[in-house]
Amino acid sequence: MIRVVINGYGNLGRGVEQAVSKTEDMEVAVVLTRRDPAGVTTLGAPVAHLDDAADWADKADVCINCGGSATDLIEQTPAAAALFHTVDSFDTHARIPEHFAAVDAAAQAAGHLTLISAGWDPGLFSMLRVLGDAVLPDGETTTFWGPGVSQGHSDALRRIDGVLDAKQYTLPVASAVEQAKTGSAAGLTTREKHTRECYVVAAEGADRAAIEAEIKAMPYYFADYDTTVTFVTAEELAAGHSGIPHGGQVIRRGATSEGVHATIGFELALGSNPEFTGAVLVAVARAVVRMAERGEVGARTVFDVTLADLSPRSPEELRASFL
Amino acid sequence: MIRVVINGYGNLGRGVEQAVSKTEDMEVAVVLTRRDPAGVTTLGAPVAHLDDAADWADKADVCINCGGSATDLIEQTPAAAALFHTVDSFDTHARIPEHFAAVDAAAQAAGHLTLISAGWDPGLFSMLRVLGDAVLPDGETTTFWGPGVSQGHSDALRRIDGVLDAKQYTLPVASAVEQAKTGSAAGLTTREKHTRECYVVAAEGADRAAIEAEIKAMPYYFADYDTTVTFVTAEELAAGHSGIPHGGQVIRRGATSEGVHATIGFELALGSNPEFTGAVLVAVARAVVRMAERGEVGARTVFDVTLADLSPRSPEELRASFL
Repeated sequence: MIRVVINGYGNLGRGVEQAVSKTEDMEVAVVLTRRDPAGVTTLGAPVAHLDDAADWADKADVCINCGGSATDLIEQTPAAAALFHTVDSFDTHARIPEHFAAVDAAAQAAGHLTLISAGWDPGLFSMLRVLGDAVLPDGETTTFWGPGVSQGHSDALRRIDGVLDAKQYTLPVASAVEQAKTGSAAGLTTREKHTRECYVVAAEGADRAAIEAEIKAMPYYFADYDTTVTFVTAEELAAGHSGIPHGGQVIRRGATSEGVHATIGFELALGSNPEFTGAVLVAVARAVVRMAERGEVGARTVFDVTLADLSPRSPEELRASFL
Repeated sequence: MIRVVINGYGNLGRGVEQAVSKTEDMEVAVVLTRRDPAGVTTLGAPVAHLDDAADWADKADVCINCGGSATDLIEQTPAAAALFHTVDSFDTHARIPEHFAAVDAAAQAAGHLTLISAGWDPGLFSMLRVLGDAVLPDGETTTFWGPGVSQGHSDALRRIDGVLDAKQYTLPVASAVEQAKTGSAAGLTTREKHTRECYVVAAEGADRAAIEAEIKAMPYYFADYDTTVTFVTAEELAAGHSGIPHGGQVIRRGATSEGVHATIGFELALGSNPEFTGAVLVAVARAVVRMAERGEVGARTVFDVTLADLSPRSPEELRASFL
């Protein structure tokens, strides 16, 4: 059995625990937390304080860093790489080279293997972007996100005066998706590719028109998009918008010869964003353990992983039943 | 530059030559043929007789075997593996373990690396089947083929008395695809998943009703499907049905926790089946050269390849721009 450390127990850590429970070759060794372990209730995994992480170095095969934000992971992953082979879902695109270098140094120093930026984007979507580019070099890749909840945009809504709670959905524009599949989406503007839907609980007596205007004018977050604002009660928000669904599509369209085209489409529809991200992290953790057993050391990404290493099945079974 | 041997110059060999021309890091060293080289016209690549293959062993980095049928490849790939690192698109699923063993023995003896069964199915579809199974172990995978031309079924139509020419299209049933994405397709019969459309040129005076009845009753090929037969003239067949489009979908739907589901969909829409297959073979050939440079020897499949090795780009560029 592959013994997994879950480092951090928010939505993602819980998703990882669920995902491990779906495997037959992996088990959770411990959940590490910065909180009082006595106050953390898991699905069954033991809980320890992060300060005692070193106690688990010999009792686990891989550590999945589930820090709640990219800022957490910038610190958490290099620290964990000193003790464990690790995986994380670092998703601040602009800082990936910096994070990769820091994690590589920590892992090399400790003789560990650490894979960063796994999940679905970055992660599976990244894999498909590279695949599309490699197979159809004369082409164009378009990524669409949604339908799904954007946590950052929902947070931005909640910071507005008079807003008690809110949820924001990003939706791809169907005609833009069709255009990416059958022609070129290169000329499409931000506004033409995605729309944003906001469900907002306003305080009693708040100026709803002012709130709506403030949302729609918010630079970067909403101003560049066709945004709809719907005011709901706290009960309606809880009843209809409690999930964390997400998804999206990576579309590669290219020419295989003059006037002859091919389209590669990859689509995710996820009932729970953190649970699916957790599921990807768990499969990648399996690969990391196998790669580390072969002596690999340092930092890696999903581009360095084979499907054989991601799978719990033997090479013979994969060739006989999946090829 | 990676120097490529194209072994066989039918539709697939031509597709490989087109695909190499789309790359910046690869070139065709030679096209090998069993025919008289003087009678083979390429897009520009030199042509030599297969009997002289050994002359190219030191002048090429990888050989792509483009035998016209799985029967060809059973012989062609082990023979080529004695001289070159190789790639093929062997697609007789039941004989893959046998082919893998034979090719592995030949490659090991010669110190070469050889990757079998690349293309899109087997190939990219196989990769997605393994990915879906690894990420969502509690789930179900469904593969749909088409819309596209089935060469084997078109050949079967042409063998019927009174049929001069014919083309057969396989089409997925849209409601079945939807069912695979949102529920379970496990209970669907063969008939419920795909339909078959036949465009047939009948000889003058042939009994069309008898031809149609014979087609629809043909066991394995058509009897298990809802099949439509449309009689067309030779001119109509040439004008409307000269392409070799194909495609399909691999759908994985699974539970990430009790009652919460995720769907992974992968879809191909190919203007030219052999050109796209050629494009996959070329990307895989690049990976084989790199893996061989690291000392790998023997037989491999697409499950053993990383995306970094498939891509012409540097790891730094992939991390900065594709992750």
